[in-house]
Amino acid sequence: MASIVRRAAASRFTFSRLARLSSTNCKPPMPQNPHFPCVDAHAERESRLLSSLSSASSSSQSTKLATDPSSYETGPEPPYARPNPQSYKTYHHPAPLRLAYSDTPLPSFTIAYESWGTLSPSKDNVILLHTGLSASSHAASTPANPAPGWWENFIGPGKALDTNQFHIICTNVIGGCYGSTGPSSIEDATGRPWATRFPIVSVFDMVNAQFHLLDSLGIDKLYASVGCSMGAMQSLAAGWLHPQRVGKIVSISGTARSSPSAVAMRFAQRSVLMADPNWKNGFYYDGLPPHTGMKLARQIATITYRSGPEWDLRFGRQLRAVPETDASSPSTDTNPSPSRPPALCPDFLIETYLDHQGESFCLKYDANSLIYISKAMDLFDMTLPALQALNVRPSGASSAFSQFAYDAPTPTPIPTPTTDRHRTSHSKSHPPPVNPPAYLSELAAGMAPLAHIPTLVLGVQSDILFTVEQQREVADALRMAGNERVSYYELGGVWGHDTFLIDVHNVGGAIRGFLS
Amino acid sequence: MASIVRRAAASRFTFSRLARLSSTNCKPPMPQNPHFPCVDAHAERESRLLSSLSSASSSSQSTKLATDPSSYETGPEPPYARPNPQSYKTYHHPAPLRLAYSDTPLPSFTIAYESWGTLSPSKDNVILLHTGLSASSHAASTPANPAPGWWENFIGPGKALDTNQFHIICTNVIGGCYGSTGPSSIEDATGRPWATRFPIVSVFDMVNAQFHLLDSLGIDKLYASVGCSMGAMQSLAAGWLHPQRVGKIVSISGTARSSPSAVAMRFAQRSVLMADPNWKNGFYYDGLPPHTGMKLARQIATITYRSGPEWDLRFGRQLRAVPETDASSPSTDTNPSPSRPPALCPDFLIETYLDHQGESFCLKYDANSLIYISKAMDLFDMTLPALQALNVRPSGASSAFSQFAYDAPTPTPIPTPTTDRHRTSHSKSHPPPVNPPAYLSELAAGMAPLAHIPTLVLGVQSDILFTVEQQREVADALRMAGNERVSYYELGGVWGHDTFLIDVHNVGGAIRGFLS
Repeated sequence: MASIVRRAAASRFTFSRLARLSSTNCKPPMPQNPHFPCVDAHAERESRLLSSLSSASSSSQSTKLATDPSSYETGPEPPYARPNPQSYKTYHHPAPLRLAYSDTPLPSFTIAYESWGTLSPSKDNVILLHTGLSASSHAASTPANPAPGWWENFIGPGKALDTNQFHIICTNVIGGCYGSTGPSSIEDATGRPWATRFPIVSVFDMVNAQFHLLDSLGIDKLYASVGCSMGAMQSLAAGWLHPQRVGKIVSISGTARSSPSAVAMRFAQRSVLMADPNWKNGFYYDGLPPHTGMKLARQIATITYRSGPEWDLRFGRQLRAVPETDASSPSTDTNPSPSRPPALCPDFLIETYLDHQGESFCLKYDANSLIYISKAMDLFDMTLPALQALNVRPSGASSAFSQFAYDAPTPTPIPTPTTDRHRTSHSKSHPPPVNPPAYLSELAAGMAPLAHIPTLVLGVQSDILFTVEQQREVADALRMAGNERVSYYELGGVWGHDTFLIDVHNVGGAIRGFLS
Repeated sequence: MASIVRRAAASRFTFSRLARLSSTNCKPPMPQNPHFPCVDAHAERESRLLSSLSSASSSSQSTKLATDPSSYETGPEPPYARPNPQSYKTYHHPAPLRLAYSDTPLPSFTIAYESWGTLSPSKDNVILLHTGLSASSHAASTPANPAPGWWENFIGPGKALDTNQFHIICTNVIGGCYGSTGPSSIEDATGRPWATRFPIVSVFDMVNAQFHLLDSLGIDKLYASVGCSMGAMQSLAAGWLHPQRVGKIVSISGTARSSPSAVAMRFAQRSVLMADPNWKNGFYYDGLPPHTGMKLARQIATITYRSGPEWDLRFGRQLRAVPETDASSPSTDTNPSPSRPPALCPDFLIETYLDHQGESFCLKYDANSLIYISKAMDLFDMTLPALQALNVRPSGASSAFSQFAYDAPTPTPIPTPTTDRHRTSHSKSHPPPVNPPAYLSELAAGMAPLAHIPTLVLGVQSDILFTVEQQREVADALRMAGNERVSYYELGGVWGHDTFLIDVHNVGGAIRGFLS
């Protein structure tokens, strides 16, 4: 602090001297100060928002914007803006939802969902698809909402999730902002948005809410629980909470225990978001949202979603080719302009890419939902001690839980190959580790309820957020827990964590093979 | 935008309805809103700064703070706050400094430096040590400044840079804020701080300024140019600009060409900093600095300086054990408090670690210096086309430059082993690649002036900022350029980029061996 005090004192001295000089006859030249389009963009966005707000009450324009597909960005993220209640179904649960981390339940909740394919008469062909952090229930286009969904190429006739065979249900998670109850929902007790009075939710709470929906639909057992990223956490949590109701589990680029690196990256995002003066401790719903913080958070997130090798190939050190004032719509022109002098605002294509990703996301998602759901990811931990500290238990019995002791997790013998196709293929090539570290034994103990559920674990070697080591950890823990039907794949490629949104051939192929 | 418009409209409707309700007899309960110590910390810091500012003119306290070592943080970063002109030497260059990216030179400059060991009568034992981004010239303690320096354990009698043998000089770089000319310096033409009127500087400019200092000291030739991180860039740049004046080069955890991933990570830091309302386009010197942006930027930077494996070992998923109100001084108590419910502010030790790193740095370094120097790192590129676009050339001749043609870089034959100890050992085990990619040929062509300078390249496999692939790239390009005296080492370990600050045994050993 001393440095600042002294610097400021020196500067102020300079300025007072300057004032004296100016008042006499010796005016120093006043060079023009530089301007920064990449910073001005925040103020310009704020002005646009303010003027939209002021005309919102009478706005036919706002309705137009919300339904005009051209106002949505394309890309791997859901092209979904403000929820349109006609485009999805909802289930309202009027009773309290017990929460993993809170003694006070959520008094009631609504869950938004969409579905694809036909439910069989015996209701035995249901796949529950879980979303990543910011996705909506709109995983694929529907008659009610023809916009492409976030997993458009994976859902449909003959696709990875084959609608000729399966009835697929996808929900917006509790804590989200696309139709399900979250921080932006109205709290009945106050008539105001929950904001940060909303309780901390866990991945287990998201899944329990989904099972209340399944109950309401009369669906007793899932053919499979499928998810990528945070969806993979939910997929594993579904098997743990309801081991008798889940036929198969698919965990893609997920984890059973968030790593400190991933926590660090999400902490950085929450920190920039919560530092935005517009965040106002979460109580911003009657004014402007923290759009700048959201943009900055998304820029950081984007770094974790892709990988260095992809950027080397895609951008290299190419310079942006468009004027700085067009920062919001970067060109991918391959002709750099080496003659343009460098500036403090974006020079390189990689910078305009990040800027654009932030810009196109910052008004599409509720900031509090981002904070709550990223926190839920951080908290996710299926080691036995962590699970024992929760307020929730596997359904059916606490016995499923009490058969394991933390101090002495049951050592699992290496499975003996049998004639079963799955058992033979997996156990032979991937026995569980002989001398596992302590946390892995705790993870195996925690994941014991999943011991009898065939599970596909798929990860990507270039993923820096859910590393390939974490994929191996999930597979090893399941095998140590006695699961002899673990399918395990690692993908190469340069797309990092986002591979699950892009690599239809390899990701889709593994899913199709596992589900068939 | 539509989503916000509609959300805000809905919220406002709710609030007006609430107002009507309140004005009648039906008041909803008003639960207490949560508070967020990790966010309040920014406002508290701001208050402290404001009150310090208001008492600064008469402040004996500020002087006390600046000289009281207990007011400095310890750790790998320099324990250096506001420059104390008694603790280092300065050289003022009254003539213009030609700049790599600007047609207008820097009119004059001052460079701060410190030195260790005795200069030999023939001045042939000089090592120029280059710093990373935020370090000062205070690499090790001196009689004038007994505080430990940023490379304290590497400089001294018998250490990696042996003061019994060498005279070591370290400068604060041009663009910095520890005594050398930078954005916080007064611009003669206006009598005000340069702020963002300061020209874009490059790593080459930093080095040219250093060579003007060497000229003033009568030092014609360096025994070695040594640097880590951005210091390694300077070390390579010194060899390129002044090939006849550099005896040996040491490049540790550096690069000859910043990668898009590293640009992305630094872009994220600049973005959060420039979005701080206190940044004011860089013209903040008469008021508060962008301390919140600096804290957030440092949090992101810290993620890139260390590595996941270290955090797995050091923090794992341990929870913080201290009350939230003490966020600025996290405990490393190994007893987590699993019974404390999770919160949106830091829960995990990794979060308090990042918070603490940001907090302890945010007032120690000038924000504009951070922006300018991180930009200089992004721009660093020793491929021939990039070098040809600069306003600076290797000294002595443009001939050293013109012997290479971009369109047809001279193919370099694989060196033939000779009886020379260095040549034999390096060329045999590490021939240059047979089919190098185009950029590597361009890099070799650009680095041709370094072909005759023995060079140590050392990198760390867990470094995510200056990856091990980039270390191999530097070594390969030098070999392709015909350099037969490249020493190349990769270190394991979990410390990532910061290894050069920590691993005295391995990093120091490699340097000592190479310099002897």
